[in-house]
Amino acid sequence: MLLPHSTLKDATPDTVRKAIRAGQYTGHTAGLCPGRLQVNLVILPEILALDFMRFCQRNARACPLVGVSDTGAPHIDALGDFDLRTDLPTYNLYRNGVLADSPNDISTLWGDDLVAFALGCSFTFESALQAAGIALWHIQNDSTVPMFRSSIQARPAGPFAGPIVVSMRAIPSARLDDTRAISARFPHAHGAPVHVGDPAQIGIADLTRPDWGDPAPVPPDHVPVFWACGVTPQAAIAAVRPPYCITHKPGHMLITDIPDLAEALDILDLPSRHPSQQERLT
Amino acid sequence: MLLPHSTLKDATPDTVRKAIRAGQYTGHTAGLCPGRLQVNLVILPEILALDFMRFCQRNARACPLVGVSDTGAPHIDALGDFDLRTDLPTYNLYRNGVLADSPNDISTLWGDDLVAFALGCSFTFESALQAAGIALWHIQNDSTVPMFRSSIQARPAGPFAGPIVVSMRAIPSARLDDTRAISARFPHAHGAPVHVGDPAQIGIADLTRPDWGDPAPVPPDHVPVFWACGVTPQAAIAAVRPPYCITHKPGHMLITDIPDLAEALDILDLPSRHPSQQERLT
Repeated sequence: MLLPHSTLKDATPDTVRKAIRAGQYTGHTAGLCPGRLQVNLVILPEILALDFMRFCQRNARACPLVGVSDTGAPHIDALGDFDLRTDLPTYNLYRNGVLADSPNDISTLWGDDLVAFALGCSFTFESALQAAGIALWHIQNDSTVPMFRSSIQARPAGPFAGPIVVSMRAIPSARLDDTRAISARFPHAHGAPVHVGDPAQIGIADLTRPDWGDPAPVPPDHVPVFWACGVTPQAAIAAVRPPYCITHKPGHMLITDIPDLAEALDILDLPSRHPSQQERLT
Repeated sequence: MLLPHSTLKDATPDTVRKAIRAGQYTGHTAGLCPGRLQVNLVILPEILALDFMRFCQRNARACPLVGVSDTGAPHIDALGDFDLRTDLPTYNLYRNGVLADSPNDISTLWGDDLVAFALGCSFTFESALQAAGIALWHIQNDSTVPMFRSSIQARPAGPFAGPIVVSMRAIPSARLDDTRAISARFPHAHGAPVHVGDPAQIGIADLTRPDWGDPAPVPPDHVPVFWACGVTPQAAIAAVRPPYCITHKPGHMLITDIPDLAEALDILDLPSRHPSQQERLT
């Protein structure tokens, strides 16, 4: 029996992941476990892992790496107590760069040669913007944020290359400085905008025709603001056509145990035995 | 003919590196090219690179990775126009974990299977603390900052493991908040302290007997403040005893072209063609 999103709304990460693991929830994770970091997942064969990790390091705003598994290990200890094979609601399996399946469990697909990468996502800074009273049209209208291939090229690494993909949110002119400052506090969630204003300056000809997602208006007294987007690594991977790649299904994230705060940057790299981390977490 | 440190004091990174490349300067780089990021260098065989990169990602405060070379390529484009084989004043060559030589040029030692890692160093936040009027005893007394093996264990990655090594600086109690806030602005340079106050809480029995560097006093109205230290990865590597490893000689850093600012975090991952980066750099 599937549980509705509303039943899980106030549940802990552990409870939500157990429901997902039991096959009781397969939907999107937006709004679940507020205050906890949710992350994109990319799983690749180890032979591509060093180059992909270099790609993330070199393009940190588009690919903010918050955790990496050991080869063959379906967990990332620094981020929480989860099993990467069962604890996401829905996965996408790509073979040779083409979507082959969207399973709810990848236990039978997991292998000893796989490396999992957890990448920060825009949920984090979107929550912070909304908390500061900055409305986001795509959320209010239950649509997907518009995303565009920009003319900014990612720094390549091995076979991984391509344009920086950006997402666009229309922000009231009066709140531009706040928007910059708030999103800059979350380097693990794409950080500050990469561009503010004229879309043509970053190679976007027509704001009404996004490459991914749905169009969104730019009302009077609003300015289009562009952030580096997690589709950047996905597009770079698709172009490489690896024999095998598993990701989260968009919107169906991994819910971690760590706080969704700017300070997560500091918490991430300290082992849990460290007293000052415990203080900060409680 | 060797140039004195004072001759290069106001030179550009390019001029200093050219002098180093020509064999005209082999000394330490402290105080050279103020405002430019200086970094630690670690060069390892590719077979260890993925695990070492995971070690850095998992222990980012001790091992703040700011750049990684392609395998066999002696440069890191995002950080500047330099040759890693010739542009550091002095290197350390380790064979099986033991210091074998301290050459001024590693052209004949470079190989197609090597990967170079650039790690942020404490010069950055030390300059910022001093600029804010917070004096640092070890600098005023021309000694090396005291460093200690702490009881905080690094998160392991493959063969890389061990304690987080910390450096200690005595800070006036009245400036503790400033010190925390200023160093937190530099996540690429070890960031905020990992511990403030009682050394016993992180397993340090005797502040007067550092494991590396020179002892430094904690005067009245001062508090010992501990930062994660770049010796952490060096100690982890030494314990692995790789057949081959090259590092900078301590204090003899790689001088990059990028600014030594908090905003470097943002600049790092954007390609140089991006107009807003140009604005920020000029």
